[in-house]
Amino acid sequence: MTMQISTTAPQAPVAPSRGRLRPLGQDEVRITGGFWGDRQAVNAADTFAHISARLESEGWLPNFDLAVSGGLPEGRRGREFSDSEIYKYLEGLAWEIGRTGSPALEERFRAVVARVAAAQEADGYLNTKFGRPGQGERWSDLEWGHELYCLGHLFQAAVARARTRPDADDGLLEVARRAADMVCREFGADGRDAICGHAVVEVGLAELARVTGDDRYLEQARLFVERHGRGTLRDIEWGRKYYQDDVAVRDAEALRGHAVRANYLAAGAADVAVDTGDDELLEALRRQWDRTVARRTYVTGGQGSHHQDEAFGEDWELPADRAYSETCASVGSIMFSWRLLLAEGDPRHADLIERTLYNVVATSPAPDGRSFFYANTLHQRVPGVAADPDTTSPRASSSLRAPWFEVSCCPPNVARTLASLDAYVATADDEGVQLHQFAPAAVRTTLPDGRAIAFDVETDYPVSGRIRVISRTDAAADAEWTLTLRVPAWAAGARLQVVPADGSAEEWEAAPGAVQVRRAFRSGDTVELDLPMAPRLTAPDERIDAVRGCLVVERGPEVFALESVDLGAAGADDVAQVALAPGATPVERDGRVWIDVVRHGESDAGWPYAEPVDAARGAASVAVPLVAYHEWAERGPSTMRVWIPAAG
Amino acid sequence: MTMQISTTAPQAPVAPSRGRLRPLGQDEVRITGGFWGDRQAVNAADTFAHISARLESEGWLPNFDLAVSGGLPEGRRGREFSDSEIYKYLEGLAWEIGRTGSPALEERFRAVVARVAAAQEADGYLNTKFGRPGQGERWSDLEWGHELYCLGHLFQAAVARARTRPDADDGLLEVARRAADMVCREFGADGRDAICGHAVVEVGLAELARVTGDDRYLEQARLFVERHGRGTLRDIEWGRKYYQDDVAVRDAEALRGHAVRANYLAAGAADVAVDTGDDELLEALRRQWDRTVARRTYVTGGQGSHHQDEAFGEDWELPADRAYSETCASVGSIMFSWRLLLAEGDPRHADLIERTLYNVVATSPAPDGRSFFYANTLHQRVPGVAADPDTTSPRASSSLRAPWFEVSCCPPNVARTLASLDAYVATADDEGVQLHQFAPAAVRTTLPDGRAIAFDVETDYPVSGRIRVISRTDAAADAEWTLTLRVPAWAAGARLQVVPADGSAEEWEAAPGAVQVRRAFRSGDTVELDLPMAPRLTAPDERIDAVRGCLVVERGPEVFALESVDLGAAGADDVAQVALAPGATPVERDGRVWIDVVRHGESDAGWPYAEPVDAARGAASVAVPLVAYHEWAERGPSTMRVWIPAAG
Repeated sequence: MTMQISTTAPQAPVAPSRGRLRPLGQDEVRITGGFWGDRQAVNAADTFAHISARLESEGWLPNFDLAVSGGLPEGRRGREFSDSEIYKYLEGLAWEIGRTGSPALEERFRAVVARVAAAQEADGYLNTKFGRPGQGERWSDLEWGHELYCLGHLFQAAVARARTRPDADDGLLEVARRAADMVCREFGADGRDAICGHAVVEVGLAELARVTGDDRYLEQARLFVERHGRGTLRDIEWGRKYYQDDVAVRDAEALRGHAVRANYLAAGAADVAVDTGDDELLEALRRQWDRTVARRTYVTGGQGSHHQDEAFGEDWELPADRAYSETCASVGSIMFSWRLLLAEGDPRHADLIERTLYNVVATSPAPDGRSFFYANTLHQRVPGVAADPDTTSPRASSSLRAPWFEVSCCPPNVARTLASLDAYVATADDEGVQLHQFAPAAVRTTLPDGRAIAFDVETDYPVSGRIRVISRTDAAADAEWTLTLRVPAWAAGARLQVVPADGSAEEWEAAPGAVQVRRAFRSGDTVELDLPMAPRLTAPDERIDAVRGCLVVERGPEVFALESVDLGAAGADDVAQVALAPGATPVERDGRVWIDVVRHGESDAGWPYAEPVDAARGAASVAVPLVAYHEWAERGPSTMRVWIPAAG
Repeated sequence: MTMQISTTAPQAPVAPSRGRLRPLGQDEVRITGGFWGDRQAVNAADTFAHISARLESEGWLPNFDLAVSGGLPEGRRGREFSDSEIYKYLEGLAWEIGRTGSPALEERFRAVVARVAAAQEADGYLNTKFGRPGQGERWSDLEWGHELYCLGHLFQAAVARARTRPDADDGLLEVARRAADMVCREFGADGRDAICGHAVVEVGLAELARVTGDDRYLEQARLFVERHGRGTLRDIEWGRKYYQDDVAVRDAEALRGHAVRANYLAAGAADVAVDTGDDELLEALRRQWDRTVARRTYVTGGQGSHHQDEAFGEDWELPADRAYSETCASVGSIMFSWRLLLAEGDPRHADLIERTLYNVVATSPAPDGRSFFYANTLHQRVPGVAADPDTTSPRASSSLRAPWFEVSCCPPNVARTLASLDAYVATADDEGVQLHQFAPAAVRTTLPDGRAIAFDVETDYPVSGRIRVISRTDAAADAEWTLTLRVPAWAAGARLQVVPADGSAEEWEAAPGAVQVRRAFRSGDTVELDLPMAPRLTAPDERIDAVRGCLVVERGPEVFALESVDLGAAGADDVAQVALAPGATPVERDGRVWIDVVRHGESDAGWPYAEPVDAARGAASVAVPLVAYHEWAERGPSTMRVWIPAAG
C-alpha cells in the first residue's frame, strides 16, 4: 500500500486551523475491511450507481441541463432543494475517488460537474429553482427556498474534491468560489442581514476558507452563525427554533428545533469558533453537546423525537414510538461531534460517533445498498409494507427501507459518510496517534518533527472485542511516540496488553476513556486491546418517561432489538405480546444474543385503565434471539422494539 | 318552568328513526345549574360574543359580504374551511336560543344568516373559497378543499334551527335545502363518484333528511359513507387512512387516521345504519368503537396521538408527551358515542361521553370562556407561554389556552356542544326515562302511551357523588314507569336509596352499569344515588408503553394532574423532579386531592443509559395537592403531568 504522507492538508472533510488533535486523512488512514470496509465496498459498487440512476430518472440532475437549454421553469422536477442531492452525491464521489481512484467514478464525476458548471450564471449564482422568469426571485423565500443550503453542499463537494485531487482541472472549485464570492457580496456585512432557513452554508464556507485560504469565506460563515437567533426568519407554527433563529448560537443551552439543521449549524459554528479563536462560542457548543447527549439523544445515538417538525423534543422527551431519529441528523451529529473531538480530544465525542455509526448510519442502508431508512424508529408497532423498488416514497412514512424519497437527502448523506469514513478513524498530535474507531486499517503518518509512524490495525470488531495494533516501522530508540486507544464508556474491565516483537508481554486494565502506550515502537511490536463484549442490559434514566420500566440489550457498540419474526419459540407473533422474564440476563449462543421472555398481557377488558394489581405471572419463560438493531427489517415485515418491558 | 312536550321531534341534535332509546331534547330536559350549568352560562354570555367578534375581525364572516359585493377572491381572508366556523357558530347560537330564547342572540343569528344566504349562488352552491374567477374550480380539490365539509356544518346549523325554532322565517333551512339539493345533483348515484377529504357532510345530510323528511338526503349520506375506502382521494404521505379512504367503513377494525374526520364519519355512518336498517354496518361501528376505546383512547377520553397528522396512533400508542387529543376529536367522539347509545342503550357509551365531557370538553375553555386548548396534552414538559389576547395562534403549537387559532374549529365546537348539552342528559323508551349524565336538571316528558313524567335532579356532582331525583308528578297507581340511572364503571360500591314521599326508605347496592327503579312515582318521591367519590389510583394496561410504571389519580369522573405550581412543599419546581412515594394513596383534604411524592432522579451523568440499579430511595415523602385536569394551566405557566411515575 502506498499513501501520500501529509501533515498540513489532510485528505479529510475537516481541517481546522487549530485544536487538540489533527485529523488523519484518507492519505494517512485506510480502512482495509471488516464491518465498515464491507459497507464501503457496497457503497462504492452499488449505492453510488443507485443514486446516480435516480438523480437522472427523477429529473433532479437533468434540471441543470434544462437551466442551460432554457427549459426552466416548465420542465423542472423535484423539490426546491433537489440541487443539493447532486452536490452531496458529488462530495461522496470525490471521497470515493480519493479512496479508490476508480476511473469509472472519475469519469462520472467530471461529467456531472460539467453539467452543474454549465448552469452557473455569470455572477456566480447557481440554483435551478429560483431567479428565472416564472420562478421565485432569488432570495425571496429564505425560510424555505434552500438556496444557500444548496450552495453549502456545493462548497462541501468542492472541498472534498480539492483535498482529494488538488490538481484536478474539472473546475468544481472554481464554480464553488464564484458562488461563494456571490454569497459574500449578497450577504456580507454590507449586504442582506439574513440567514438561510436550513443551515449548512456555514460549514461549507468555513471549510472552503480552509481549502482556499480566503478568509472572506470564514468571515461570511461567522456572519451567518452570528445572525442566527435574531428572528430574521418568519415565525412559524413550530416557532423559530425550528431553524435555530430563536436564540443566538452562543446563548443556547441545547440543540433544538429541526435536528438536521441544528447539527449542521453547530458543526459550522464549531468551525467558526476554532478558526476565529472564539473560545466562548466553542465552550457554548460543548455545553450544548453535553446537554443534548444527556437529555435529547436516543440509546442508538439517534437524535430528533418529532415526526411533525423532524425536531428535537424537550429534555427527556425520547419516545421509542415514532422516534424520528432521522438518518441525516445522525450524519450531522457526527459532523458536530468530530469537530469537538478535534478541538478538545474528549473521547466522549468519539464514543457518540461510534454509537451513531453502528446504530443509525449502519441501520439506514439495506445490505444491498439500494434502499434506506429515512427515520429510524425504536419501536415498530405494525409490520411495515415493503416499498416497491421503483417507487419514490414520501420522506418518512415508509416503515421499511425504501429505494428513494421525494426528500432524498439520506441516501447521498449515507454515501458521502461511508466514502469518507477512513478520515474519522484516527488523529494525531505532536506526540503520537489516537485511534478513535476500531476497524482493520493501515495508518501511515509523520509527526511534525519528522517521526514516521506506521501501524496496522487487525480486528474483527465488533464480532469480538480484540483490537491488535501492529507497528510496521522501527522507531529510533530516542523516537518514542504515544499510541492512544479509545476505551468506550461501556467497556469497563477492558484490558491492554503490549507484546514487543522481542521481549515479554505486559498487561494491565484499561479504564474507560483512553489508554496510552508510549514507546519507541519497533516493527512487529503489538498492542492489543481487549474490550468486554458480553451482552449487557441497560436501563434508561428515570426521567425518560417513554421507556420507563424497560431495558435494552447492548453488546459492544451495538444496540439490539427484539423482532417479531424471532418470537416463534414464545408462541407469539408480535413484540407487544412479550416482556422480559424476571431476572432475565442476555447470553450469547450460536453467534446470536438471546434473552428470556414471558407472555405479556392479553386481556381486552374494554377500558384499558384500571385499579393497580400485582400481576401474578405464572407464565413459563422462553429464550428468544435478538437482532442487532442495524440488521432489523431485513427478513420481511415485522414488528420490532429496542426497549423491552421488564415483567411485573 | 314551562317546556313544550314532544315525543316525535325532540329539540336535540340527533333524532334517529329507530333505536333502543329516544333522545329527550332541550324542550324536555333543562340543566339548571352546577358544573355544566355554570359553563353554559359563561358560554352564553362570553364565548359566543368572543367568537362573534373574532369571526368579524378575522374576516371570515366578511368573506360572505365580499362574495356578494364582488370582492372575492382578492379580499378573502382565512383558511379554505373558514366558512365552516360561521356555520358551527350559527348552530351553537341556534341551540343557545332554543335553551334561553335570548333576543340579542336571536337578532345576531338572523343578521348572520342573512349575510350567509346572500352569498348563496343560484344553483345552491355556497362557498367563499371556490368557483369564482381567480379561485379554484368547484370540487377541484376534494382532498383539501373542504367544500362538502363546510356544507355539512351548514346542514347541522339548519337542523338545529329547525328543531329549536321550527316556525322561524329566517331562511336558513331553505339555504341548506338548496345546497343539499345541489350536492345530490352533483354527487348522486349518477354524479361524481367522490367524497370529501374531511367527513361531516354525511352526518349533516342524514339529520337534514330527518328534519325535512326528504330521503334523498339520507341516500346521499349513504352514498358518501359507502364510497369511503375506495381510494378515490389521492394517496398522501400519511396514507389514505388519514381521510378514512383506505378501508370501507363496514370493514374497518378501529377508528384510524385523522381523529376528527374519523369520528365525524363514524357518527354519520351510524345515522345511515340506523335509518336504512343496515344492522351489519351498525355492528361494524360498534366493534370499531370497542377497539378504539380499548386501545386508542387516553384516560381523559381524548383521542388522537399524533401531532403531525392529528391522527389516531396504532393500538396502544398513547404517548402522554405531545398527546394531541384534539378538542374537536372529543366533540366528534361524543357525537359517535351518543348515536350508539341511542341505538343500543349500552351505558358504556354514556361512560365515555361523561369522561370526555369532564376531561376534554371542560378542559378546553378557560374559566372566562375566551381562550381554548386546541390540543390537550397529558404531559407538559416546559412551562407554556401565555398567548396574547389579541393574537391568532397556529392551531396546536400554543402550549396554553389561546384566544383564537388560524384553524379555529375548537372554539365554536365547544360552544355548540355546551349550548346543546341539555339534550345529552337523558333519554326515554316506552317504559320510562334513563338519566345518563348527572347535573341539576328539570325533566318533563310524556311516554308514548301518555304517561306524564316530571322530575328534578338535585346534585352538586362531581363535588359529591349524591344525585337526588325528585318526582314532581303523581302517577296513577296503575301507571308505573321505570327510572334508570347510569352507574359509572368506576363507581363500584355505589348505593341506591328510594325515599317515598310517604313511607319508609329502601336502600341497596347499585352495581356499575345501570340501576332501575320501577314504581308509580308520587310527587316528592325521591331516588338517591350515592357514587363513591374517594380519590383513587388507576394503572394503565401493560401494553400502553408510554406510561408504563406510572399511575393516575382519578376522583369520580375527573382525572387529576400534578402541576408544578403545587410542588413547593416538595422543594421542586418541575414535575420531572418528583415521583409517587412508595405506597402513596390519594386523600381528600381541604377540598383538594393530595398525594405523597418523593424527589426523583437529579443526576446528570452525561449519558442517560446505564446498568440497571435498584435505586435506594431514602428521600422523605411529602404531600402535594393535585389539580383537576380540566383546571390545569389556570394559574400561569407550569409543567404538568397526568401520569405520575411510581418510585422504584
